[in-house]
Amino acid sequence: MIKLSDIPTTPPADADEDKLKDETKHLVKRLGELQQLMYAQQKYSALVILQGMDGSGKDGAAKQVFAECHHYGVQVHSFKKPSEEEFAHDFLWRVHQQAPRKGMIQIFNRSQYEDILIQWVHGWIDDERAEKRMQAINAFEELLAFDNNTLVFKFYMHISYGQQAKELQERIDEPDKHWKHNPGDWKEREHWDDYMRCYEYAFNHSSIPWIIVPVDKRWYRDYVMAKALVERLEQLGMAYPPLPAE
Amino acid sequence: MIKLSDIPTTPPADADEDKLKDETKHLVKRLGELQQLMYAQQKYSALVILQGMDGSGKDGAAKQVFAECHHYGVQVHSFKKPSEEEFAHDFLWRVHQQAPRKGMIQIFNRSQYEDILIQWVHGWIDDERAEKRMQAINAFEELLAFDNNTLVFKFYMHISYGQQAKELQERIDEPDKHWKHNPGDWKEREHWDDYMRCYEYAFNHSSIPWIIVPVDKRWYRDYVMAKALVERLEQLGMAYPPLPAE
Repeated sequence: MIKLSDIPTTPPADADEDKLKDETKHLVKRLGELQQLMYAQQKYSALVILQGMDGSGKDGAAKQVFAECHHYGVQVHSFKKPSEEEFAHDFLWRVHQQAPRKGMIQIFNRSQYEDILIQWVHGWIDDERAEKRMQAINAFEELLAFDNNTLVFKFYMHISYGQQAKELQERIDEPDKHWKHNPGDWKEREHWDDYMRCYEYAFNHSSIPWIIVPVDKRWYRDYVMAKALVERLEQLGMAYPPLPAE
Repeated sequence: MIKLSDIPTTPPADADEDKLKDETKHLVKRLGELQQLMYAQQKYSALVILQGMDGSGKDGAAKQVFAECHHYGVQVHSFKKPSEEEFAHDFLWRVHQQAPRKGMIQIFNRSQYEDILIQWVHGWIDDERAEKRMQAINAFEELLAFDNNTLVFKFYMHISYGQQAKELQERIDEPDKHWKHNPGDWKEREHWDDYMRCYEYAFNHSSIPWIIVPVDKRWYRDYVMAKALVERLEQLGMAYPPLPAE
């Protein structure tokens, strides 16, 4: 049972910053090699879901952790407000289209979980629909896993309420971050507790488990994510395909 | 528990052909009106799945039963052998993309069920995968129903082994049916009993029930399908939207 208030948003007291930064470099490099193997072998794929409050570092994680991956094997899809066409379909319609083909790493910047987060927090869907959507998400993720060898990684970018304020303020204070400023983010921040409640519901009702990433320090975020990805991908025992028989 | 050998492929002995043909005309006309309402209201949609052995009249049903519907509100999608891109995804990936948007009737000529029929019959998937796919199909159809107001109609075109031979032979004998002839259909026919077993599995493990349509007589097929569609759509109480307030 995950309770977010019990989980720190900062690195453990004994974490050695220099050592972990160094280890992260190796992990990020190894992730690049594993991505190349995956692309060459065309047997597995990975879906990397990034969820978190505004300013929790989803964009940065997608850039830093996958820095050594080739662009041809990694795609990022950011889910925005649904279009009219998307709204005329079930909530997974647009999501399913973006599922990775074999060999690919697909990063979701926000995801199907928004449809039980923002929509639930604002009362656009009721409890019953949120629960049914959660079941549909479980079935969807299981389908990707069993029928397409897709590894589903779900990262929650765990930021503190105080740190979020700093991050959002930087977008106002620093000219090269102005483009990220959105007054709506401050408005959503007022629903913080509701978001935490909905996130916890998702964590505790997901069949594929979540990885809670303490993100107040970005170097620790990168370390946790790179480690989780590399460890799981190493288990696949991927290998380059041999020359085809003539 | 559905057992196909217990269900006739011909009309009941007391079926009055002239009377039912007349009734079918009215039903087909009413279906056209209901389709127009659905299109105008943009609240509901319908997915009409047509499954059956070769020569069981899927194409004909799609034409005759929907004869009074407008083309802008009805689409037919025929699922063929998957493309390379489709094979690189889970089996529902290409299916989900074709789910109807609100207001539309989408007809599937063959469907997601082929992935637990032809593939299972030929041993390309094992029992475990077939069962998991069945669960995934149930979750998918339930998603369309609860999250997009989609009515899912599943028609099995129930043809006899003897009648199939006649239908396939006509494709050899009649010039305007040559284009439908495919020697592979005769080959698939050798797996008849396996297909029946797999179909029965699907019928008996579907959460949304199937409608078994006796199709040896085409006039009776059209009657059964039109009646099922109209009766269910009437229950929705659809109405044309009022003029929007200025």
